[in-house]
Amino acid sequence: MNTAIAEKSTMANGDIPEDANEHCPGTQSESAGKSDACEGCPNQEACATAPKGPDPDLVVIAERMANVKHKILVLSGKGGVGKSTFSAQLSFALAAMNLQIGLLDIDICGPSIPKMLGLEGQEIHQSNLGWSPVYVDDNLGVMSIGFMIPDPDEAVIWRGPRKNGLIKNFLKEVYWNELDFLVVDAPPGTSDEHISIVQCLGATGIDGAIIVTTPQQVSLIDVRKEINFCKKVGVKVLGVVENMSGLCQPLMDFKFMRMTETGEHIDVSERVREYLREKAPELQNLIACSEVFDSSSGGAEKMCREMDVPFLGKVPLDPQLCKASEEGRSCFIDKKCQVSAPALKIIIEKMIEKNGFSSMLVDSA
Amino acid sequence: MNTAIAEKSTMANGDIPEDANEHCPGTQSESAGKSDACEGCPNQEACATAPKGPDPDLVVIAERMANVKHKILVLSGKGGVGKSTFSAQLSFALAAMNLQIGLLDIDICGPSIPKMLGLEGQEIHQSNLGWSPVYVDDNLGVMSIGFMIPDPDEAVIWRGPRKNGLIKNFLKEVYWNELDFLVVDAPPGTSDEHISIVQCLGATGIDGAIIVTTPQQVSLIDVRKEINFCKKVGVKVLGVVENMSGLCQPLMDFKFMRMTETGEHIDVSERVREYLREKAPELQNLIACSEVFDSSSGGAEKMCREMDVPFLGKVPLDPQLCKASEEGRSCFIDKKCQVSAPALKIIIEKMIEKNGFSSMLVDSA
Repeated sequence: MNTAIAEKSTMANGDIPEDANEHCPGTQSESAGKSDACEGCPNQEACATAPKGPDPDLVVIAERMANVKHKILVLSGKGGVGKSTFSAQLSFALAAMNLQIGLLDIDICGPSIPKMLGLEGQEIHQSNLGWSPVYVDDNLGVMSIGFMIPDPDEAVIWRGPRKNGLIKNFLKEVYWNELDFLVVDAPPGTSDEHISIVQCLGATGIDGAIIVTTPQQVSLIDVRKEINFCKKVGVKVLGVVENMSGLCQPLMDFKFMRMTETGEHIDVSERVREYLREKAPELQNLIACSEVFDSSSGGAEKMCREMDVPFLGKVPLDPQLCKASEEGRSCFIDKKCQVSAPALKIIIEKMIEKNGFSSMLVDSA
Repeated sequence: MNTAIAEKSTMANGDIPEDANEHCPGTQSESAGKSDACEGCPNQEACATAPKGPDPDLVVIAERMANVKHKILVLSGKGGVGKSTFSAQLSFALAAMNLQIGLLDIDICGPSIPKMLGLEGQEIHQSNLGWSPVYVDDNLGVMSIGFMIPDPDEAVIWRGPRKNGLIKNFLKEVYWNELDFLVVDAPPGTSDEHISIVQCLGATGIDGAIIVTTPQQVSLIDVRKEINFCKKVGVKVLGVVENMSGLCQPLMDFKFMRMTETGEHIDVSERVREYLREKAPELQNLIACSEVFDSSSGGAEKMCREMDVPFLGKVPLDPQLCKASEEGRSCFIDKKCQVSAPALKIIIEKMIEKNGFSSMLVDSA
């Protein structure tokens, strides 16, 4: 059975149509449309007659990217690991360092970035320079399909080629002006969006990818795939972030339930808190922690050692960080995210330090 | 700007190529390849000359599905909301009712189902009847790309058309024999996999979709899109499940920390548990709950009322359920998942009851 699908993607070549036959020689090959493998391919005639040469769109993209110093992808194997939350907070943090930041959301079917930057309901405007990003601040611009859908409940029911077309348009049309960092938030997986962004940006230089995961094995399995994707397409892994590393919260902030024999939960929080205050005051100031996601396999840190990629650190599951994300706020500007913000700060500083970006801070300071 | 992408997908017609121009008349139309909209479309020549008629693969799929009584899709807008966990436990639960169950995983780039059914490392075998599912039990068969990849770390770097081809092959080639339920676990979103499964299975009758979400607004936004997808393609919403509705865990399962003046955490779990046993035994059997994800917006229940779809219930974030999923176990066979299993059971019973599936239980009993 394996042979049926074990054949590897040839996307690294950059010139294989999505619906090509196996063993496609590539559209830029002299045998394009003429080799045995082209028999029956829907592209056969187009390939045989098309002029050979690089995609002219790549030239337009290279011009747009000429003023962008660094490009960072934020990836995850699995969804729901907090990738968009990380992209948003990374952008807030970099912008707070007085750098010029662009945040590009290429999750076409489920764009979360507008909400996480506090920009819901905003629209993109067009000028003679191109599509204008929506700005959180002078130095933090954002682009997302979320700004283009009149009804936010509307499903974007698009197959790959159409998603790819929009991603290319984002890269060709958006006028970012000068940027220190372009942060690209991708959907989970290793499919159209990922192939397209690497194909379109590859020639202009991608600094690397930050990969976000949870400690769960189901997430780590997919992260290994994502790291192998990066290796295969030649994108450096800047580091792995383990998110949702256990929940920690003051004991008195919990609700307490008693379960009845029929499985119903009865809220006894008030009584328990009173009991604690009166009869067990030594327990009152405790912090209670739950692992939530089983990390007995060693979590992301062990996986990073095995796969020889940098581990950037752990961020605890902090209800206050979830709330900040929902409300489109930076977690760094007040003390509410006391459990997660210091961890995120250390991770971002480590990423900057390790990759030689710190000189920029001196420049901009 | 909106017009650029506000044009709606025409996938409901079932005959629009992925890379078609806007206003494509459809490949089955008499004007296919000949209308004004066909100008410059890569499919123009193929469309103009192709024989008109239904996709012959749909006939093969209909034959395969003739012995499948009910087909249920498990969808989510956002990833990481526990969709695969739900699909796995739903399949375990239905199989425990002595029904014949097939579980089909169409998440091509991040297949979690093999792990969640305890089937990692298994392979698919081929017989003259077709591809054989991998069986957990006589009455619970599973199909996933996860069984086809020799190296589980290998990234499946496939664009849409290739993913669609495999999904079609799953439907054409897998020999399920007689099934009471085929449960289809989809990746998050509303793109290739979703369009393909609806196009391929639509004619054979899809009973409906169960949609899984968390209480977070970022997830609910995407769920609204998913519900609108179902409405647009004519798939009934069997109900919405709110997963990770707060963390609930027996108090004695928590770790307890004392924070020092310098901010360090000291693990005092053993001492606290001993204290509880000896001095406060009435607290021992309590369950402690934390909201984790902000649900102040009313969560899935309110959203269901607004969108007029059934709400099936809430499942708390239970570390024991996460652990059961990681280990490929049913949460229903022992008492470990005491917080989540009863909630899941009620949801599944409600779904069966509401949709008239309960007569099957009598038949099979």
